[in-house]
Amino acid sequence: VSKNVDIENHDNAISRRNEIMKYGYPTLDNIRIFDDFILAYSNVHKGPLWVCEHLTDYNVNINNKEVNRSQSKFVPDNSVNPIFRGNNSDFLGSGFDRGHLAAAANHRQSQIAMNQTFFLSNICPQIGKGLNRSKWNELEKRARALSRKYGSSYVLTGPLYLPTVVGSEKFVKYKLIGDNNVAVPTHFFKVIVAQTKNGGFILESYVMPNEEIRDDIPISSYLVPKHSVEKGAGFLIFDYIADSQYCLINGQSNPDFLKPN
Amino acid sequence: VSKNVDIENHDNAISRRNEIMKYGYPTLDNIRIFDDFILAYSNVHKGPLWVCEHLTDYNVNINNKEVNRSQSKFVPDNSVNPIFRGNNSDFLGSGFDRGHLAAAANHRQSQIAMNQTFFLSNICPQIGKGLNRSKWNELEKRARALSRKYGSSYVLTGPLYLPTVVGSEKFVKYKLIGDNNVAVPTHFFKVIVAQTKNGGFILESYVMPNEEIRDDIPISSYLVPKHSVEKGAGFLIFDYIADSQYCLINGQSNPDFLKPN
Ligand SMILES: [Mg+2]
Ligand SMILES: [Mg+2]
Repeated sequence: VSKNVDIENHDNAISRRNEIMKYGYPTLDNIRIFDDFILAYSNVHKGPLWVCEHLTDYNVNINNKEVNRSQSKFVPDNSVNPIFRGNNSDFLGSGFDRGHLAAAANHRQSQIAMNQTFFLSNICPQIGKGLNRSKWNELEKRARALSRKYGSSYVLTGPLYLPTVVGSEKFVKYKLIGDNNVAVPTHFFKVIVAQTKNGGFILESYVMPNEEIRDDIPISSYLVPKHSVEKGAGFLIFDYIADSQYCLINGQSNPDFLKPN
Repeated sequence: VSKNVDIENHDNAISRRNEIMKYGYPTLDNIRIFDDFILAYSNVHKGPLWVCEHLTDYNVNINNKEVNRSQSKFVPDNSVNPIFRGNNSDFLGSGFDRGHLAAAANHRQSQIAMNQTFFLSNICPQIGKGLNRSKWNELEKRARALSRKYGSSYVLTGPLYLPTVVGSEKFVKYKLIGDNNVAVPTHFFKVIVAQTKNGGFILESYVMPNEEIRDDIPISSYLVPKHSVEKGAGFLIFDYIADSQYCLINGQSNPDFLKPN
């Protein structure tokens, strides 16, 4: 685990990228490589398709007074073709927060790394009260807690556009905001994996609706099988890890776990 | 232009692939390479994202009595992970035709090439009466007519899931059919380019709704700017061809055309 990523250093940057993506790229198109996280951008939804982070014990315990969230500004990602790019104006008056998928608080090792989480390519329209500002934040803390417990964790986060069933009809419906038609996800997922000392992996896989969630509902109510996230998202998640390598899945011990030799 | 593609021959297959994709891959993920067309598959929609064909004068004039549409069967594409795969049963009783995106009639050089257009990875739920069986078929004939006129043409075809505006609300809504939630596109696009003798290109770019279309409406009513297809689809189309290389766009001469030296 590299503790000081020198982005001036090509080899370190490559090695950091490979570390973050250690368990596989969910998709291969429209990838953006930032200093401390990687994302795939959706030209259709004008936002991230998925965002992958590697949270180290170091990253999540850092207390760098020179890095300050208030110095970061939401900015359009100019690496995106203008016809597929969202702007701050799209969010203005929409009623939605600009919700980070790679959480700002996970990237405190440098102001640049934190600033990169404020690119709109890392942002989705997210309900503020009861989600971005509380239950989703609680889930982000859970990912940091797991990385503290196990030394590090890998976190894949993304929007979902899930089906609705009304009578015998099934459909997908989601809102668009602003002149650029930024898509409003119906749900968000976060899948966290970490390796234990016995060589097995723990997995926690969450889906939350893009709605206000009551404070008294525990985040564990939003645990779902990883398989159902994959089906909804349209890609495999951490697919270099075989099912039999998980010792603990959503808090339950996995009967199919094969302990490595 | 290779007239007899020998799929046993690796070099020929590579050269055919490069010929079909001469003007660029719209996206890079989940590509399927068939003998005479290339597609990108959408795991989310359980069908094609786009399909690219190169129609040669030879292909569209072929009269091979040994190749017969009635010998081809719609089959699931087993190269797709089962959790992202559609089946024939999804279409059964849905009210939708299994609409080819690469048209069967464009691939008559061998039974194998035609059979490959019947993989469900090349199929979308499409309204039968007034679309698949008439207006869309007319559009497919237009692509063949242009390839006869200019010697060959490149055709990119795909589904669209376009926004609806109701009052001040904008949203995307599309149906899902069958146990595998195969998405029903709201529209389909087809973009055709061909090179003229002066070195310039002609472009025709169509979007049709997935609805019954009256016989007396000409296909020219469905001409739209290529730019608007790109915005809706989320990718650039034939982006190796610069705007200034088009001499004729949707039947109008292009004032920005720069005649090649
Ligand atoms: Mg947040
Ligand atoms: Mg048809």
